Amino acid sequence: MKIELICIEKTKKNEYRNIIQDYLNRINKKLSFKIKEISFVNPGKYDKKNILNKQVNLIQRYINERDYVVLLDERGKSFSSIDFSKWLNFKISSRDIKCLKFVIGGPYGINKNMNLIHEEISFSKMTFSHQMIRIFFLEQIYRSLKIINNEPYHYE
Amino acid sequence: MKIELICIEKTKKNEYRNIIQDYLNRINKKLSFKIKEISFVNPGKYDKKNILNKQVNLIQRYINERDYVVLLDERGKSFSSIDFSKWLNFKISSRDIKCLKFVIGGPYGINKNMNLIHEEISFSKMTFSHQMIRIFFLEQIYRSLKIINNEPYHYE
Repeated sequence: MKIELICIEKTKKNEYRNIIQDYLNRINKKLSFKIKEISFVNPGKYDKKNILNKQVNLIQRYINERDYVVLLDERGKSFSSIDFSKWLNFKISSRDIKCLKFVIGGPYGINKNMNLIHEEISFSKMTFSHQMIRIFFLEQIYRSLKIINNEPYHYE
Repeated sequence: MKIELICIEKTKKNEYRNIIQDYLNRINKKLSFKIKEISFVNPGKYDKKNILNKQVNLIQRYINERDYVVLLDERGKSFSSIDFSKWLNFKISSRDIKCLKFVIGGPYGINKNMNLIHEEISFSKMTFSHQMIRIFFLEQIYRSLKIINNEPYHYE
């Protein structure tokens, strides 16, 4: 089982990149996890609706049959960390899923008419920057893997 | 009106400190915001209950009459960013409050019997590290001030 995070635009700030790399190193000791950063469609050229449609086309190129696609959105289902780890454990144990793909929308959000979204999960009812949510997400994946493996986490 | 964030232990990682400093600079252009980092009671010496009691004593030294004290806890009330900005605007406009103090528990959480907690707010049902939640919190305060002042935020 592989996990991928698909997000829009490169991670800009060095600090964020360092934190992300630290979590990637930790997570990849447990399973294969990659981040796919998709180019942000130039907003200068298009109106918002157009941008969202073009963005979705770019995202869909990275989605294959037998992927399970989860959109991170503040209106999705919310979990405690324990429940999220159970959900994650169930998904990564499934033989029907080839790759678990999480999608974070861009600066303009995302076109929800996008095909192939199987589930929507919310990390918070609050809106966070699409750059910052990457860090929250990675921390929570790492925390979940610790919970799944019955390993202590609290002091890290 | 002043806002303070009271948290346990120094912010350890350089990356986190830089992100926090960036938000502090931005927020302080709008209102007076300070972070008070309280020493973590040495866990080697005490059992968990004892640590939490001693930790609360340290926190209470920084709480005064006419402060409004909000504990950040995953079991607290959750808000959308818009609703949180309305809540914040209401609090910072209040003449009865001298300082709005947010408290984040330490690595062991917090003793909820602590006197003087007026309200509990949740940023997520998920548990995040007590170091990381500082960044989320600052981003959300900054975002709220942008919303209150009708300023654009989305591209930052």
